[in-house]
Amino acid sequence: MITRRTALSAMAAPLLAAQPGEDRVERWGVFDVKLNGPRDGNPFVDVRVSAEFRHEHRALVVDGFYDGDGTYRIRFSPDMDGEWRYTTRSNRRELDGRTGTVSCTAPAAPNHGPVVVRNTYHFGYADGTRYLPFGTTCYAWTHQPEALQEQTLATLRTAPFNKMRMCVFPKWYEYNRDEPRLYPFVNRNDYTRFDPAFWRNLESRIRQLQALGIEADLILFHPYDHWGYALMGAEADERYLRYAVARLAAYRNVWWSMANEWDLVKGKSKSEWDRYFQILQSADPYSRLCSIHHSRVMYDHGRTFLTHASIQGDEFAKTPEWRETWRKPVIFDECKYEGNIPKRWGDISAQEMTHRFWLGTVYGAYVGHGETYLDPKDVLWWSKGGALHGQSAARIAFLRQLLQAGPAEALSPLANPYYPCTAKAGECYLYYLDYHQPALADFELPAGASFIADVIDPWEMTITAAGSYSGKFTMKLPGRPHLAVRFRKAA
Amino acid sequence: MITRRTALSAMAAPLLAAQPGEDRVERWGVFDVKLNGPRDGNPFVDVRVSAEFRHEHRALVVDGFYDGDGTYRIRFSPDMDGEWRYTTRSNRRELDGRTGTVSCTAPAAPNHGPVVVRNTYHFGYADGTRYLPFGTTCYAWTHQPEALQEQTLATLRTAPFNKMRMCVFPKWYEYNRDEPRLYPFVNRNDYTRFDPAFWRNLESRIRQLQALGIEADLILFHPYDHWGYALMGAEADERYLRYAVARLAAYRNVWWSMANEWDLVKGKSKSEWDRYFQILQSADPYSRLCSIHHSRVMYDHGRTFLTHASIQGDEFAKTPEWRETWRKPVIFDECKYEGNIPKRWGDISAQEMTHRFWLGTVYGAYVGHGETYLDPKDVLWWSKGGALHGQSAARIAFLRQLLQAGPAEALSPLANPYYPCTAKAGECYLYYLDYHQPALADFELPAGASFIADVIDPWEMTITAAGSYSGKFTMKLPGRPHLAVRFRKAA
Repeated sequence: MITRRTALSAMAAPLLAAQPGEDRVERWGVFDVKLNGPRDGNPFVDVRVSAEFRHEHRALVVDGFYDGDGTYRIRFSPDMDGEWRYTTRSNRRELDGRTGTVSCTAPAAPNHGPVVVRNTYHFGYADGTRYLPFGTTCYAWTHQPEALQEQTLATLRTAPFNKMRMCVFPKWYEYNRDEPRLYPFVNRNDYTRFDPAFWRNLESRIRQLQALGIEADLILFHPYDHWGYALMGAEADERYLRYAVARLAAYRNVWWSMANEWDLVKGKSKSEWDRYFQILQSADPYSRLCSIHHSRVMYDHGRTFLTHASIQGDEFAKTPEWRETWRKPVIFDECKYEGNIPKRWGDISAQEMTHRFWLGTVYGAYVGHGETYLDPKDVLWWSKGGALHGQSAARIAFLRQLLQAGPAEALSPLANPYYPCTAKAGECYLYYLDYHQPALADFELPAGASFIADVIDPWEMTITAAGSYSGKFTMKLPGRPHLAVRFRKAA
Repeated sequence: MITRRTALSAMAAPLLAAQPGEDRVERWGVFDVKLNGPRDGNPFVDVRVSAEFRHEHRALVVDGFYDGDGTYRIRFSPDMDGEWRYTTRSNRRELDGRTGTVSCTAPAAPNHGPVVVRNTYHFGYADGTRYLPFGTTCYAWTHQPEALQEQTLATLRTAPFNKMRMCVFPKWYEYNRDEPRLYPFVNRNDYTRFDPAFWRNLESRIRQLQALGIEADLILFHPYDHWGYALMGAEADERYLRYAVARLAAYRNVWWSMANEWDLVKGKSKSEWDRYFQILQSADPYSRLCSIHHSRVMYDHGRTFLTHASIQGDEFAKTPEWRETWRKPVIFDECKYEGNIPKRWGDISAQEMTHRFWLGTVYGAYVGHGETYLDPKDVLWWSKGGALHGQSAARIAFLRQLLQAGPAEALSPLANPYYPCTAKAGECYLYYLDYHQPALADFELPAGASFIADVIDPWEMTITAAGSYSGKFTMKLPGRPHLAVRFRKAA
């Protein structure tokens, strides 16, 4: 059986002599094979083109896409340095059997490759650099006027977020009743013809996020629709998925979120969702991270095609159990939003959002941010982007810094600690005391080693040295709530 | 069949002529029939004495008790005005067949009678006066040195609490490793002989609480023991229960809490507990309020002998379901304590305690208080009484005042409100917004009536008029968390 990742073409044509040095691409960068081809009929439907890229014993089959105006592209992202040779396959003679070579070079900073699952419950860049997801949410930012999209990027430049939840389709929902400038399809609803201008804008935004070190957690379907994109039918859905993968999968910062609130998307059965995952899995040569997000009914995050669990809710204390059940990272992508709109999901305080990031962390999860402050022009960060108005982002930056400095990718929640704690046993322990305010607290660390203690105030963003300890001990604490205590093994 | 409450003596001896005017007692007051009797043998075990009190067609059979020094008492609390005639029964001739009369008079303020269950989920005094439980906890206050007991009473004089959880037996636990001056039994552990001095002190404290308008929620068994009182065996347990009832049941402010953390009391089976409830039920002529409190395993609060559910925990949101299941009032007697000791159950902040009182209230429950601040002499309110050091008590006073002024005994939690709300439909609605901070919030009240709105800050203890509303509307709110909103029908 031939899989996308490992197939050696069963019908490889004799390759043309490679022309070394002609085309170069950085490892995990993007190389477009650009081809001119037929314009007649409907190329989006009639023409199939792909290429097999080979490097030594490795081969990847990559689908191409029609980019309009007679241009076809096969978009490739190599994961090994050296020479890759490719041969195209197409049902149209002028696109078939084309060959070429691209030389993959070592990546230059800040290219660390795609984010992958590491150490079962965590993530990391492919080059070994650490990656701790600190996501935010601007569902429809790429569908806003140009200036607003630019403002969003400017905000992100100094914000603490390194993952963005964003929809491919435009969004129709409260605070979001605007028509976008561009639609994914020609004439808005011709599901057989994609509008390259729409997709080029999306790609450009994905690349800009990448330049900022931000992963694009792309939501492929969602229920906030008045155009019909949630109800296109199986054939159009599949065509859309394949087109999105062909255009976007090569960007190393792309993650697939099959749907937001999948259980609110009417008219697709569970088996259809499963089929869409299989399409994604077979079409994506890079096996990008893949999840699905629910409203009330969880998807089975144990399914093999899901790389991590994307949770809605605030049941952080369930994370240890979920980790054991699914053996995957758990991200609370939506735990409500900091804001003040008349919605229970969009009116939590900055303190509560900060609190939730900490609770999620000590229970072994990652947590996502969003902001929903009333705005005279209805520009709410959670949907349209723009500027941040809240107070949690600064605290999230503080937490991120703090975790970046520790053994974050090795942290696991302790079983039944007195206060919730995530730890790398014997090395680092991070307790969050929540509403508890002990003036004295009992801890137990390994005996025979000394641990340096810090009292951390997640809201005031202070770290105060608090002595060193070993074994079982009682420690003086400030006696006020919402503090954290960290112990690190002395050097 | 003869029941304690309604029996007409089947073997009533001819009564002596009543001597009207000689003995008088207020309705719900306490009248002691004092008798001199045998001192030989062990009167606690050997002598049984009781009396039947009759008023018109009503009769109550009341067990007496031996009070030492040849004195026997039959302690009676009438619940109807007029003449009650009594005849004693005993297995000793000198105590048998004694008759008398007591004239029951209308109660004078502040005697409102015992607290009873009213309107299924609430409480009220027998005379119709409202009673909203706002309890606190000083488990072992009556076992402390005299001066400390007095200090506790002095504190209670200005505190907002009208119910006290307190143990009959002394307590042996962290912060409580003192021997009491008095033990319930002679020689500490002679379970066949009660020490009247111990019981007289307890009664005196119960009467003093009564004078302060405080119900004594008496805990009959508990696991914090090093004397053996938790493991006396079935015979001694029953004798103890009957003695406690004979001495204490006549005090109208007595509630029975069969046990604290019953599931931590080793060596008593569920059926033994059930039997103890039956003993209590048959021995107590007044059917005082009766509950049992758990640690991890809940008793079945649906049992008919339980008048209300005494909960440990913070699952306030479950109250509406529990109300429906048990059809009884729900009291969260322990939701952790405000304090700073190195215990998860004793280190919550004053804000959190305040928050819990509000959450419990809007979900249709009542909530109990306790305080555990470190003290150089280990005098922690929750166990020994003394002084209050925390900041929640003042906020509890504020909430109590607020509820006292409304239709509290008719409040029920709304089904699925946007924010949790308890209401008397059409009249009064109390929302608590928890960590939500909407600057605008949507509400729906009955149309065709006008409701006066107040924004309430439970921590700052402010009530701010906020206009009047009707039907469906969006209301401006301050946009900060932990506020409540009240709507009252305009006069």
